[in-house]
Amino acid sequence: MRTSKNNIVCLGIDPGLARVGYGAVMQSGFKLQALNYGCIETKPDMNFTERLLKIYNDLQEQIKICEPDLISVERLFFGRNTTTAEFVYQARGVVMLAAAQNNLKVVEPKPNQIKLALCGTGTAVNTQVQGMVQRFLALKEIPRPDDTADALAAAITGLALINS
Amino acid sequence: MRTSKNNIVCLGIDPGLARVGYGAVMQSGFKLQALNYGCIETKPDMNFTERLLKIYNDLQEQIKICEPDLISVERLFFGRNTTTAEFVYQARGVVMLAAAQNNLKVVEPKPNQIKLALCGTGTAVNTQVQGMVQRFLALKEIPRPDDTADALAAAITGLALINS
Repeated sequence: MRTSKNNIVCLGIDPGLARVGYGAVMQSGFKLQALNYGCIETKPDMNFTERLLKIYNDLQEQIKICEPDLISVERLFFGRNTTTAEFVYQARGVVMLAAAQNNLKVVEPKPNQIKLALCGTGTAVNTQVQGMVQRFLALKEIPRPDDTADALAAAITGLALINS
Repeated sequence: MRTSKNNIVCLGIDPGLARVGYGAVMQSGFKLQALNYGCIETKPDMNFTERLLKIYNDLQEQIKICEPDLISVERLFFGRNTTTAEFVYQARGVVMLAAAQNNLKVVEPKPNQIKLALCGTGTAVNTQVQGMVQRFLALKEIPRPDDTADALAAAITGLALINS
């Protein structure tokens, strides 16, 4: 999907079990362009290992499509909800494995780094971040669901971090 | 490695990031026999995604060797040490993916279920469990490191749970 070897492509990921947002962004000089983006969804009525397998297979397909140079996978922070954490971290492990198998450089921005990269402050609210995703990528509307927009934000942050 | 289709082979896993214990146990009637067992180790000086990749590749190799019917992956419980949990759960995700890719039936015993299956009480201490692993499998000594013995205990529990 890339047009020249001078471009850098970063695939951003917002990890989860029910929804994994993904979004590839290509940087050419100062210009950013969204490539493939969307959300991998797995249903609660699938068993857990089947959900991991779907995430893995769909992600491998997106990696083939966008041929990224790097992957930017948001770090996760959980408070007391350790039951959710358990499953979401396992899903994140599958994403990280796919990155390793494709020899991708990995960036793991924290939520406040993403906010800082897109909005200039680590305390920006999520709607601000999503509005900036739309502006940076000149999209007609904010990508839905939130997981997709968050993945594109992670991709833009990944590009900012490797350039800085 | 199996000798007959009447046998059931369970691959037990004690998940971790630095050490993943594995141990295959074959059941033929009432007889239990240890097949391949050991411990996949990853060094802290490897980067995180490389460690996941090593765990995945080594585990796939062990699955090829023992051709299990099912995999028994111990459930993990963490108290306040959420930093360790984050990485260990991601490693566990890679194990679960390998299970799904090989169409293995998955059993996920809790620590107290393993203690109950091997020692008759959910409050047994770990040295008791390891001693029973040695007895059940008629091994000359307790397998080392602990992760290996714990994986064999998970395998024996997996066989007990599907038979019950």
